[in-house]
Amino acid sequence: MEVRSPGISLIYRLELANSVTTFAKVASLVGVAGGDINAVDVIRVSKDVVVRDVTVTVESREHGKRISDMLNSEPGIHVVAVSDRTFLVHLGGKLEVTPKIQVKNRDDLSRVYTPHVARVCEAIHEDPSKAYQLTIKRNTVAVVSDGTAVLGLGDIGPHAAMPVMEGKAMLFKQFAGIDAFPICLDTKDTDEIVRIVKSIAPAFGGINLEDIGSPRCFEIEERLREELDIPVFHDDQHGTAVVLLAGLLNATKLVGKRLQDCKVVIVGIGAAGVACTKMLLAAGVKNILGVTLDGVLHRNQTYDNATWNWYAENTNPHNVTGTLDEAIDGADIFIGVSGPGVLKVEHLKKMANDPIVFAMANPTPEIKPEEAAPYVRVMATGRSDYPNQINNVLCFPGMFKGALKARARTINEEMKLAAAYAIASVIKEEELTEDYIIPSVFNQAVVKQVSDAVAKAAYDTGVARREVIHTDNY
Amino acid sequence: MEVRSPGISLIYRLELANSVTTFAKVASLVGVAGGDINAVDVIRVSKDVVVRDVTVTVESREHGKRISDMLNSEPGIHVVAVSDRTFLVHLGGKLEVTPKIQVKNRDDLSRVYTPHVARVCEAIHEDPSKAYQLTIKRNTVAVVSDGTAVLGLGDIGPHAAMPVMEGKAMLFKQFAGIDAFPICLDTKDTDEIVRIVKSIAPAFGGINLEDIGSPRCFEIEERLREELDIPVFHDDQHGTAVVLLAGLLNATKLVGKRLQDCKVVIVGIGAAGVACTKMLLAAGVKNILGVTLDGVLHRNQTYDNATWNWYAENTNPHNVTGTLDEAIDGADIFIGVSGPGVLKVEHLKKMANDPIVFAMANPTPEIKPEEAAPYVRVMATGRSDYPNQINNVLCFPGMFKGALKARARTINEEMKLAAAYAIASVIKEEELTEDYIIPSVFNQAVVKQVSDAVAKAAYDTGVARREVIHTDNY
Repeated sequence: MEVRSPGISLIYRLELANSVTTFAKVASLVGVAGGDINAVDVIRVSKDVVVRDVTVTVESREHGKRISDMLNSEPGIHVVAVSDRTFLVHLGGKLEVTPKIQVKNRDDLSRVYTPHVARVCEAIHEDPSKAYQLTIKRNTVAVVSDGTAVLGLGDIGPHAAMPVMEGKAMLFKQFAGIDAFPICLDTKDTDEIVRIVKSIAPAFGGINLEDIGSPRCFEIEERLREELDIPVFHDDQHGTAVVLLAGLLNATKLVGKRLQDCKVVIVGIGAAGVACTKMLLAAGVKNILGVTLDGVLHRNQTYDNATWNWYAENTNPHNVTGTLDEAIDGADIFIGVSGPGVLKVEHLKKMANDPIVFAMANPTPEIKPEEAAPYVRVMATGRSDYPNQINNVLCFPGMFKGALKARARTINEEMKLAAAYAIASVIKEEELTEDYIIPSVFNQAVVKQVSDAVAKAAYDTGVARREVIHTDNY
Repeated sequence: MEVRSPGISLIYRLELANSVTTFAKVASLVGVAGGDINAVDVIRVSKDVVVRDVTVTVESREHGKRISDMLNSEPGIHVVAVSDRTFLVHLGGKLEVTPKIQVKNRDDLSRVYTPHVARVCEAIHEDPSKAYQLTIKRNTVAVVSDGTAVLGLGDIGPHAAMPVMEGKAMLFKQFAGIDAFPICLDTKDTDEIVRIVKSIAPAFGGINLEDIGSPRCFEIEERLREELDIPVFHDDQHGTAVVLLAGLLNATKLVGKRLQDCKVVIVGIGAAGVACTKMLLAAGVKNILGVTLDGVLHRNQTYDNATWNWYAENTNPHNVTGTLDEAIDGADIFIGVSGPGVLKVEHLKKMANDPIVFAMANPTPEIKPEEAAPYVRVMATGRSDYPNQINNVLCFPGMFKGALKARARTINEEMKLAAAYAIASVIKEEELTEDYIIPSVFNQAVVKQVSDAVAKAAYDTGVARREVIHTDNY
């Protein structure tokens, strides 16, 4: 069985001649052509024709086009229009900027704008920390991308990246009540990106970096973290790492191993692979092997990629050399952040008992779950159509909510660890099964527990700046 | 009579001992101290005390403090808290970023975010103009400031400028349905501001520059207008100029003069003064004299300020020299964008018949309306507590709405002229009086007429890019 992309939902508007054809005929034609009818609506009925909207799940745009042509060639059927439901929800964009209060009269106007707003400006000018009380900074995050590493699409540019950043901003609001705004930058220059983000920071309480290509993403994040006094978080790195750790905590609990004692093999040492490794090191895991196309990273070699040298220094305690074939021997955990087909059944057979496999390449995992099933105990992927989805949505809303709540100046390792433990703890020990090691993104306990844990960690580590809440501003 | 700032509205929370004092006593004390009670609410009643919120308009913060101290010193009265209503509406900021559709389930999530959003990104990557259909660009404006010339407060920095920019964004939504987001920049460097605004432009359909100091604002706007293909509009310059022209069109109509034939004296040749002059030149006015602290700008002198040299070349047809005393002789119209006290009764006496005076210095006009009244026919100010307020809110919402509707690549002189004529035309000829030459900001006809006129001018001058609206995106 082929791992397929999730289907596309199309709406065919059909004009059906009453005398010639029936809806049963349409249903039969669509079925034979491989489309799944999900819904049928009557739009208009006259003596001669019926106009219907037929919602059909198809495999691809080409498949949808074939069905359209096939229907059109049938006597008595005319395809008036074909709409893609995904495009329909994107028309005009997905976000609005709305006032919290209505300006209904002169009195309102004079309060939210001139002349009285001047007193609010003066109060912030006298005490800049008041920006957190009197402006949107308290609850607003910038979702910043340069459009160079968008989903699996690569460098598609800032305009084409916008739908992803708008979607992310929607999720911030929906899951955590955070106001997020997409900033897509028309530059790929590291220095310039750092300068721009620093310059636009006054409006924001946090910066979520997104889909910025490696290795620039490392330097950009590192410099911004040093130079800004608000949290800066590259979600592709750390969000993935936090959710991965949450899943591993529960998976090892389920199979009765201590995560810290496990041998872990990670394939794909890019931005996400490095972040996952650092997260595991922070959680106390010792025996980690990183595998690239060049093989296992080890200390007998010097790499062009500076990160790989750091990696070889800080992992692989027994200085194993070779390829995945050697590295996987006796491993408890496999983590894939690479590409399809990297992991074979032969590899699975070499692993320790109760193998744990997190094959997170998107959209096609390192090994097909069906193929791996007989040889693994716990399997997770990045996909929503299999159990145990490693999804960043489990992390970033609660992470920023906790950081904003504590008015944290940064997001540190302790806060990330706290988030991972919080996500894992949403599933009680007695609920854990091989198919349920990670909570659903729609589980409302997640944001609450993550944000509380993150805020606590911020206070415990001294990076929180919020004191008592003042409501009396006079 | 002193021209005063509009009053401040404070809420005193008072605990009144039943046995000792009554509300009548409080009312009397506040009245004697010069406060106006606007509202009284009972918060809590017990056997011994009543807690009341008393809303009082006071003249200044100090005045409010004196009333508070006075009440506190009275037996049986305890001031629990004093809140400033203006600060209360600012708590947590004034804007939200909200999703247009709710993400309720897995199906929604897959459409607005991964995996299906990828197809939308690809569509924009293939045809960048689709950003106007499939992202927020269509209806979103950046309100950009560096915080260097905020209201009358000067260089108060980007954090303290936020409440103004948030207020502006509220008005964009409230009056024109436009989504606007405040971008307050932590830099004063012209090159850097130009680079930043260009880099963040992909999300936006227009740029509203705001409260940027002169002369940098000229270069910043000019370069951005050249280098970006979306409208860039410095509201402090052009918004004021458009509304001024609208007012002058109606004022001259009322007194039976042709604006083009009038002698106009403008005091204060900064950003707003220059923009007003250019607007009047574009409207066909010939005899304009610009007056600075150095006197009338004329061609016998070379100025350090390059703009002033341009000004002397393009105005003052009779090359008048001297000060306002000379310039005002026989003038039909006085325009002040300077400071309080600049215009004297003696000046008014030298003007032509039916003098028109637009004294727009804020918050204190060039001459007090009460003082000028006996000598002028039509008077306008920047204040809301006198008739004929010259308020930018009459311009920018409709201006951007029209430009976005037409998908204009710029805002040109024709569009600004069209906006001015549209604002003026909201008041019918038979409705015109000395106290009603400019519509109220709450007159809903204004945005409609301005946006229609601006869009038409964009099409007429070839800067509109919008064709037919596509709803079928497959």
